[in-house]
Amino acid sequence: MNLPQGFLLSGIHCGIKRRKPDLGLIYSKDSCCAVGFFTTNVNPSYSVTVSKKNINNPIKAVLVNSGNANCFSHTKGLKDTEQIIGSLAKKLRVQKKNILFASTGVIGKNLPRNKIIKSFGHLLNGLETDVYKFASSILTTDTAKKISLREVGPVRILGFAKGAGMICPRMATMLGFVLTDAKVSRSFLKQIAKEVIEESFNSISVDGCTSTNDTVFILSSGKVALKKTQLNAFKRGLKEVCLELAKMIVKDGEGVTKFIELKIQGAKTSQEAKQAGLALANSVLFKCALYGEDANWGRIIAALGQAGIKVNENICIKATSLKRREIVITVDLKRGKASWNFYTSDLTPQYVKLNAEYS
Amino acid sequence: MNLPQGFLLSGIHCGIKRRKPDLGLIYSKDSCCAVGFFTTNVNPSYSVTVSKKNINNPIKAVLVNSGNANCFSHTKGLKDTEQIIGSLAKKLRVQKKNILFASTGVIGKNLPRNKIIKSFGHLLNGLETDVYKFASSILTTDTAKKISLREVGPVRILGFAKGAGMICPRMATMLGFVLTDAKVSRSFLKQIAKEVIEESFNSISVDGCTSTNDTVFILSSGKVALKKTQLNAFKRGLKEVCLELAKMIVKDGEGVTKFIELKIQGAKTSQEAKQAGLALANSVLFKCALYGEDANWGRIIAALGQAGIKVNENICIKATSLKRREIVITVDLKRGKASWNFYTSDLTPQYVKLNAEYS
Repeated sequence: MNLPQGFLLSGIHCGIKRRKPDLGLIYSKDSCCAVGFFTTNVNPSYSVTVSKKNINNPIKAVLVNSGNANCFSHTKGLKDTEQIIGSLAKKLRVQKKNILFASTGVIGKNLPRNKIIKSFGHLLNGLETDVYKFASSILTTDTAKKISLREVGPVRILGFAKGAGMICPRMATMLGFVLTDAKVSRSFLKQIAKEVIEESFNSISVDGCTSTNDTVFILSSGKVALKKTQLNAFKRGLKEVCLELAKMIVKDGEGVTKFIELKIQGAKTSQEAKQAGLALANSVLFKCALYGEDANWGRIIAALGQAGIKVNENICIKATSLKRREIVITVDLKRGKASWNFYTSDLTPQYVKLNAEYS
Repeated sequence: MNLPQGFLLSGIHCGIKRRKPDLGLIYSKDSCCAVGFFTTNVNPSYSVTVSKKNINNPIKAVLVNSGNANCFSHTKGLKDTEQIIGSLAKKLRVQKKNILFASTGVIGKNLPRNKIIKSFGHLLNGLETDVYKFASSILTTDTAKKISLREVGPVRILGFAKGAGMICPRMATMLGFVLTDAKVSRSFLKQIAKEVIEESFNSISVDGCTSTNDTVFILSSGKVALKKTQLNAFKRGLKEVCLELAKMIVKDGEGVTKFIELKIQGAKTSQEAKQAGLALANSVLFKCALYGEDANWGRIIAALGQAGIKVNENICIKATSLKRREIVITVDLKRGKASWNFYTSDLTPQYVKLNAEYS
């Protein structure tokens, strides 16, 4: 798989987890421009706090760790984070402000600062054009690497994600990294990214829980020129990458046995359609019914009503066979002409068991 | 168990369910005054619609059925409901407007109107002062009858509830019937009931799902005089009955193995404290951790943050042993002086299995 020009990747084990890869790096040969989307959780990870501060600067590297959320480990946490970033900046001969940081894992435990700093030599030595080690280093309870690639003319768009649990869209419910070499302005990237993220990472839910660490970075090295006529294709490509990753996250959700595409139609506004999708995706009872392959549409009526969406008796609900692993459920509210697609999963005994023994 | 004066009860099997009792009646010898609290779900049961219309009238009887929600069974549903109420009114020689109706069960199926109407003779013949048949007739997946009694001087306060699933407080997440013979004004009853309900039935959650049928009726026959000095004791008694029933609902929640009392302290306002309790009670991940007896307090931080409650690092979280069946978790937010108690349960594989095969 060919990396977009201008980037290198690395992924190693530094000792946050017992054995699996737990530290990743995205390195931009020259500085790149970045757009970021962050969790709306008001108790965010220190990594989110620092990245929010730095996102508008030219970016040299993105450090990612898994196995520790770097969140709520007392004031020391923010200091540790600054030290880690400072140390990496020194190694790369840039400033702290040119580095982004994303973390995922258990909340409330101090990041092993020294272990991480000591491993930077190893991490930088590992920089390569291969994508798999980095893709592995960002995972937690995921059972598979999540990578998506599109090419638009000479331009490449390559995305990585990690998901599994605490997945509910309020930007972005997981970690996502999308690299491209397209030479586009930051303002253009920001504008199209917002729309793309809304229809992909912000249209999924596994368990209705918005994590403290959700982050998506879109990085552009600007190495490859793009014709004006290719801008739409680029946007389409970016959306395909983000949507593919978002679907991978749902499919690999903890304990998931069913992937459900909710096609909400006939809503008054697209906002209402999205809200209807979210209400169903976060209804514990609806998700249990899907696990049981039980066409209990009363659960849909109740969930929509709880969310304030009054349905009339013309409502039309259709689904492909509930016995399949991938199910499409079309809900036509017959209230208007707007629509939205939302992606979710069933809720299973396995999800409960996994999360009963997480920490 | 002695019924408050002025009331009689009945509970029979009429054929909505295969075998179990499914039709109940509360009969007021003279008319009684009633206060009602209804679901905020905007797709309510026809029984809710009709009861909301009638609640301000003198009430002669409350009809209750279990096994069918009487909700969203096409326009015929409302007509059927009116016919059922009309037929009962005729039997009792009162008007339709003097009857309340509450239903619980599967959504989207027509109520077997004729079966119900034909059984009214049997239902009225069964009127008695015994409480158990009525208490049984209102249950669905509940494993036990829910009855609570307090005596305040000569006054009796007797409550019944049914719960089990679709339990999330936005009035009232279940059916509740509280009878008293206290002679109090309707406006006084209304005023104290609002506060009492807020701290009892509206402070519980099993699964975050607000049903289409939630209803609590408080009925007063006015048969027994109450001294002014007893009004506070009466309010306390009413609260005890409602809180006891509310806790019974959580303890008997579908698949529940743990009852959790959340004592939220140090909040800025009692509203904020309640919101914090609700956020924890509805966090799927927090509830899974409790099932696993896993003291993963990061889940508390994440859930509070998702609900917009920023916590500082002084936050103090204490819990009695997670190994016990009843757990008290105290969360001191250290932001202010307000507090609220909230009641919830764990989320278990058994809950998922039960609800995978409900309809």
